[in-house]
Amino acid sequence: MSLIDALNWRYATKKMNGEKVPQEKVDQIIAAAHLAPTSSGLQPFRVIVITNEELKEKITPIAFGQTQIAASSHLLVFAAWDEYTEERIRGVFSNANKERGLPDEGPSDYEVMITGVYAAKTSEEHFTHAAKQAYIGFGMAIAEAALLEVDATPMEGFNAAELDVLLGLKEKGLRSVLLLPLGYREVNGDWLVNLKKVRTPLADFLIEYN
Amino acid sequence: MSLIDALNWRYATKKMNGEKVPQEKVDQIIAAAHLAPTSSGLQPFRVIVITNEELKEKITPIAFGQTQIAASSHLLVFAAWDEYTEERIRGVFSNANKERGLPDEGPSDYEVMITGVYAAKTSEEHFTHAAKQAYIGFGMAIAEAALLEVDATPMEGFNAAELDVLLGLKEKGLRSVLLLPLGYREVNGDWLVNLKKVRTPLADFLIEYN
Repeated sequence: MSLIDALNWRYATKKMNGEKVPQEKVDQIIAAAHLAPTSSGLQPFRVIVITNEELKEKITPIAFGQTQIAASSHLLVFAAWDEYTEERIRGVFSNANKERGLPDEGPSDYEVMITGVYAAKTSEEHFTHAAKQAYIGFGMAIAEAALLEVDATPMEGFNAAELDVLLGLKEKGLRSVLLLPLGYREVNGDWLVNLKKVRTPLADFLIEYN
Repeated sequence: MSLIDALNWRYATKKMNGEKVPQEKVDQIIAAAHLAPTSSGLQPFRVIVITNEELKEKITPIAFGQTQIAASSHLLVFAAWDEYTEERIRGVFSNANKERGLPDEGPSDYEVMITGVYAAKTSEEHFTHAAKQAYIGFGMAIAEAALLEVDATPMEGFNAAELDVLLGLKEKGLRSVLLLPLGYREVNGDWLVNLKKVRTPLADFLIEYN
């Protein structure tokens, strides 16, 4: 299936049937998020995979009762760095040098520059920027799920502060940004499944300067 | 090619050779962004396609001299709504009702609710939220380009305010967010092309609650 066909096939599934997604498909969905490009390659977000039924039940009210959480096979939580620190940036570049067989004798000029750029910003600005990078990975995970014919429900609507406490994310230097329950559609009772997919007319969406 | 293979093939191309990308491939890349999911389906961003050589030359200094702008085949600019207005939200739901053959007798309870949620926020908060949606579409465009073996350079680093003036985006109710030059790699002189792709170790990237 082409990506365009997959994106036409997918929809924000409103009811899931509880069936399990094979682990190898979940692994590929995570791999797509893991391979997503991010600003300076810093990958300032993490993917949390939840299969624990009790935990999914606890998250349901935090996501305003959306039933796809508990009925999902795997719940993905995308969580971004709460700030860019010198140590975290160093870790990324040090790992890259090691993987590329390059000497790692401390920060390059480029690393010093971006560390300085972040040092001049507030941690709230850091988090907003890191969260944006998570949206790219979120897009990649949605794309891969659709290609594998795994249903998913992209969710921004939940109480992030409560979820952070439940999952102990502050201690990990993370803040939750997005949820992506994975599973399979339950056609009976899903009000959206049979509605036509609608997008802004392309003539409005696309602006050309030739 | 699978999406995973495509994401491993792609990289942030540092030098392009000026070769043109066939229009049908550009159309598919735009289609992927157009099909991306967004919050409440509002699609609060637009894709601007620039092939005009003079305009690309003018954008180069705004993007800090990055040569891929002028050497690209097509330059995509992702620009987000500067605010969510009642009229814009109405337009989206009215179009959806029309496309689905549903009566459109004014805002549903859901539309009233989300219009109210946005009305309580500042236009800067609106823009930040809209910009995040653009990142999902940006991810989809990058994915589709890679699947079509079209090179691309995701760019956040440019003077958005200057670009907005050059393209007259304020008059369109938009603010620029991201750039994506499309083209083909020029292997000679691209310092990144032969370096190993590195990602955060999966053991750090992935957190599991079983």
